[in-house]
Amino acid sequence: MFESRFICICGLPGIGSVGKVTADYLVRALECSTIMPFFSRSFPPQVMVSQGLAELMHAQLMRPNEKENMLILSGDAQPLDVVGMYELAGNILQALKEQGVTDVITLAAYVGETDEKILGTATDLDSAAALCECKIPLLRSGAIGGLNGLLAGLAPLYDLRGFCLLGASSGADSVDILAASNLLCAIKELLHLDIDISLMEPVTEEPEEMEAEEVDMNYR
Amino acid sequence: MFESRFICICGLPGIGSVGKVTADYLVRALECSTIMPFFSRSFPPQVMVSQGLAELMHAQLMRPNEKENMLILSGDAQPLDVVGMYELAGNILQALKEQGVTDVITLAAYVGETDEKILGTATDLDSAAALCECKIPLLRSGAIGGLNGLLAGLAPLYDLRGFCLLGASSGADSVDILAASNLLCAIKELLHLDIDISLMEPVTEEPEEMEAEEVDMNYR
Amino acid sequence: MFESRFICICGLPGIGSVGKVTADYLVRALECSTIMPFFSRSFPPQVMVSQGLAELMHAQLMRPNEKENMLILSGDAQPLDVVGMYELAGNILQALKEQGVTDVITLAAYVGETDEKILGTATDLDSAAALCECKIPLLRSGAIGGLNGLLAGLAPLYDLRGFCLLGASSGADSVDILAASNLLCAIKELLHLDIDISLMEPVTEEPEEMEAEEVDMNYR
Amino acid sequence: MFESRFICICGLPGIGSVGKVTADYLVRALECSTIMPFFSRSFPPQVMVSQGLAELMHAQLMRPNEKENMLILSGDAQPLDVVGMYELAGNILQALKEQGVTDVITLAAYVGETDEKILGTATDLDSAAALCECKIPLLRSGAIGGLNGLLAGLAPLYDLRGFCLLGASSGADSVDILAASNLLCAIKELLHLDIDISLMEPVTEEPEEMEAEEVDMNYR
Repeated sequence: MFESRFICICGLPGIGSVGKVTADYLVRALECSTIMPFFSRSFPPQVMVSQGLAELMHAQLMRPNEKENMLILSGDAQPLDVVGMYELAGNILQALKEQGVTDVITLAAYVGETDEKILGTATDLDSAAALCECKIPLLRSGAIGGLNGLLAGLAPLYDLRGFCLLGASSGADSVDILAASNLLCAIKELLHLDIDISLMEPVTEEPEEMEAEEVDMNYR
Repeated sequence: MFESRFICICGLPGIGSVGKVTADYLVRALECSTIMPFFSRSFPPQVMVSQGLAELMHAQLMRPNEKENMLILSGDAQPLDVVGMYELAGNILQALKEQGVTDVITLAAYVGETDEKILGTATDLDSAAALCECKIPLLRSGAIGGLNGLLAGLAPLYDLRGFCLLGASSGADSVDILAASNLLCAIKELLHLDIDISLMEPVTEEPEEMEAEEVDMNYR
Repeated sequence: MFESRFICICGLPGIGSVGKVTADYLVRALECSTIMPFFSRSFPPQVMVSQGLAELMHAQLMRPNEKENMLILSGDAQPLDVVGMYELAGNILQALKEQGVTDVITLAAYVGETDEKILGTATDLDSAAALCECKIPLLRSGAIGGLNGLLAGLAPLYDLRGFCLLGASSGADSVDILAASNLLCAIKELLHLDIDISLMEPVTEEPEEMEAEEVDMNYR
Repeated sequence: MFESRFICICGLPGIGSVGKVTADYLVRALECSTIMPFFSRSFPPQVMVSQGLAELMHAQLMRPNEKENMLILSGDAQPLDVVGMYELAGNILQALKEQGVTDVITLAAYVGETDEKILGTATDLDSAAALCECKIPLLRSGAIGGLNGLLAGLAPLYDLRGFCLLGASSGADSVDILAASNLLCAIKELLHLDIDISLMEPVTEEPEEMEAEEVDMNYR
């Protein structure tokens, strides 16, 4: 269903870091380069220091080195206030539109009673039906909050199709690798990606090195 | 008193969902079509998913298919911050003005000591007097908060007459159908609407299906 | 010290309603007419209903019917957020400048240890010295918050002189008539006003009629 | 490493007042004059009164009377909201750029486990390496919040080099003179300043005169 489309996969920090961990894994597996940073006056007002280097909080749009018609958006944080969330989502979608993107797929966690590992939703009926045909069960009802919700929900205002894929999570872990792995499998199949997903586990070591407090602040 | 006027009835979510339930009932009874959506950067930053379809939170202006000189405004939520409330109210009133509307009637709940089922208020003395003549007792003193208050209060700045009709409510129920029914009766008589109001009860089933938390979030 | 000046006295709601009660008394004693309303997207998002009439929260600039070179600013509330306070204060000062005002005198309460009934401060040394000569003891150190502080503090950015007169108050009463009376006496002497200040007491009856909650909300 | 550079040292209120106390000491030792005030609609909405004189909260850019290629930025407070912090930091950096500044060095406290008295970070690898050569150990990882973090982190967006020097502090004292002294020593050596740093202690008396509450509010 995405063969002739130009897709952007978005995984901003959220519950269990499910979307962000998945997006960051794709960034490594597909060897991406940053093509555009996004700043927001509503990001946490701080610099992150790593190995002596200070860097402002930001989101970044990345392009796989050897793959056309795909972009990946990841980021350090979610804006702290609602107006900032809408503003940043609008800026990102405007840029995606200008890059030629046609479909926005956001990744997030689903916390709730379900027997499914993955649930999906789309912003139009045809797209929702297509998800079903691809064996992605649809979320019956609920709400998807934050940038991962807004980027999908605002997409139609920019003439883009919006999708959200949710990895079922207990919501108890600050980093839910299992949910992220499930999400990664689903994305791989859905987009016919030629990537090795067996390396998902090792990735988890990096966030585990961080102090609990920082993980909480930056990975939520 | 409204015979030669172009009226917009507004019922946004509020205490007991009184205004929203009444407005939504009118939308069905008068078979309305959406003519304009309103978005706000201060709406809860989330998409609502229903039957697999994701939709951004919004308010919407609707027109009865077989009735001129009337519009109805309903919505999913109230903006989360004060500046966003004023902005959205201003955008809505500007649009109403351009549609030719002359009178804005907002619907809300009244929580307080009173023997009346319905109370009213208007933004000018003549309109308040006219309400009295139509057997709508006037609210002596108090405050009406949120969009239902602002849309009436800001109306004169757009050369519109502002009214607010309040259904007395204990404020204890998340959805107060009795108060909404009273409000519906009053609106029917005031505007000489030819609608069947006996179907009010069944409408309540839909919100009851929702989980308590969601009702609280979206219907308040 | 104010003989050849064009003064605006400002009393917005604050601790003990001291400034507002004093300003409102002056409005009646000097028989003022409203010349300009001020709205703010940060005022409490509600309409106030009185005798069936709904009115949006606002501040208003008033002119004594038989007195030139004086204006009085009163208002229903303070903006709810900081940015809104600065914006409204800027809008008001810009309007005062255009009216020809040269001096802004704000009225507020002082809660703290002092033997004085009245304390004063000004935004330049000459003005502070002049206050002393007029028997107004100077506040040694402290902070004056909200619109009554900002209107004085921002005045120099509009080439206006800023003053703040503070009536000592315990801060315990929602309406401190004694502090307001002291402030009224001081203002009468300072500006050589020909008004009867013995009627201060009866004015207090009106706020007493209001419910405690409303007084708290609107008079603070 | 700073010989041919035009430096601005920034010390806004923060933990232990470490950065502000150091900057204010430099302002006196280098006999500076104010060249530009900065106001913000997000500064605490109040005037500070001292010796009868009322002054709006502000930050100020100062120039040493007998030293070129150096500016110092100090201030009364940090903006109260995130958007205001980004806005003010942007306004300041724009002004520094126009003054010809090439390097921004912010001063702040470091609260955490370390054996070092001073830690540093920079916004590019060469600058971080240069800090090391000057015997300033690098911060391995962490986050620097508020204006002192943002001014360094945003610097590259204005083609400026950003540095942050951190004085290790327990974080327990509202004014940590020891941490400020260590920071002062480091700055003196780094910039080859010809100043007497033995007078650091007496400076502390001034904040001690203030009431605990005010220190908390304005010096944090």
